[in-house]
Amino acid sequence: MIIYGKNVIREAVLNKRPIYTMYVDEKFQDIKFLEFLTNNNISYKKVNKGELNNLTQNGVHNGVVADAKAYQYVDLNEVLDRSKRQVFLMLDEIQDPQNLGAILRSVEATAIDGVIVSKKHQVPLTGIVAKTSSGAIEHVKMILVGNLYQAMLELKEEGFTIVGTAGEATESYKNMPKDVPLVIVMGNEGEGLRTLVKKGCDLLVSIPMKGKVNSLNVSVACALMLYELIN
Amino acid sequence: MIIYGKNVIREAVLNKRPIYTMYVDEKFQDIKFLEFLTNNNISYKKVNKGELNNLTQNGVHNGVVADAKAYQYVDLNEVLDRSKRQVFLMLDEIQDPQNLGAILRSVEATAIDGVIVSKKHQVPLTGIVAKTSSGAIEHVKMILVGNLYQAMLELKEEGFTIVGTAGEATESYKNMPKDVPLVIVMGNEGEGLRTLVKKGCDLLVSIPMKGKVNSLNVSVACALMLYELIN
Repeated sequence: MIIYGKNVIREAVLNKRPIYTMYVDEKFQDIKFLEFLTNNNISYKKVNKGELNNLTQNGVHNGVVADAKAYQYVDLNEVLDRSKRQVFLMLDEIQDPQNLGAILRSVEATAIDGVIVSKKHQVPLTGIVAKTSSGAIEHVKMILVGNLYQAMLELKEEGFTIVGTAGEATESYKNMPKDVPLVIVMGNEGEGLRTLVKKGCDLLVSIPMKGKVNSLNVSVACALMLYELIN
Repeated sequence: MIIYGKNVIREAVLNKRPIYTMYVDEKFQDIKFLEFLTNNNISYKKVNKGELNNLTQNGVHNGVVADAKAYQYVDLNEVLDRSKRQVFLMLDEIQDPQNLGAILRSVEATAIDGVIVSKKHQVPLTGIVAKTSSGAIEHVKMILVGNLYQAMLELKEEGFTIVGTAGEATESYKNMPKDVPLVIVMGNEGEGLRTLVKKGCDLLVSIPMKGKVNSLNVSVACALMLYELIN
């Protein structure tokens, strides 16, 4: 797949992601970045900017683009670790790549154990997601399940408490349990949690708002939930 | 200017923003929204989707587009109110409209007193900003100043404490003063705070991160700062 941007490619190289072809803008000026590539045995082709624009479909590539091995999902069982308290974020049909990228940054910064998604109606792990994640995508375990509700049932059996966010909930997010194995569930941009997903939650919480419109961006709401856990 | 999306237009109408022409997709199905327009004496033209796509430059318009009076900035002096404790957010060259939109939602939800920007290198108040603000832009005071550093000096004279966010700061954002008149200063997406802006801050704080990439989206960082104040 095509990935781009200095942060994304730096993290990919450091993380030993296979890079099939590395493209650099013929006018690229960042000598340190080129040395970084060379020091990591990544050879590169100099091409013109138009070619980079085409490869990335006019993405903000900063002059560096790579054809690299695609980001992979893992199975829930590969990530579950009964020897410690884990926290997962479950996303219910997030559609905007920029939102997903921002969420991955927060997940990486709070060092939680992974992000659970189902393939249906969920934005895939594209170059835009990687770019807006600023490379954080390299360090986040993306867990693909067939069905979110089914995954919730399994996680409950494993001792997890499932906390969903819903505008109508009367409990503040400040009061969610923090010392138990947790799954935080976030709904999508337009509709919030679907009915069945909401039903699967042990507890619904809301983020207090004091305005008239009272709607937060989903990546913002996610970050408030996750930071509540590490404070 | 062209604005679009149901939330944006609903808030504009409720806020009595002059609407010069209202366009609705000829296949638009939301009867309640049309009744809302009619009840508010907004007449509309039915047009085809292609025309709406053109008007919005392929924005996500949900079938409703308006040519409305542009969003206006106000002067700092119009907003300063010495009779109460105020909180402002100052943005140093935020460039991405989607980030600004998300920030305006958080500003509206936390009901702080306004957002201070300078025109230079700052994304203007476009239809995309309005859309990604989900209409919150109607309720946020946008304050335009000639020079951010100069505005900081004035605000200090007025008794404000200026708190900037910077990755290298050793003080946690949890420890910023919360009961005094405050200006929270956020840097831009790539570079953070500029040197002079940083110099104008009374205190620099950072948001703790536990990962490797350790970089948050600016709208996420903004929300964490603002929510810290209302908890």
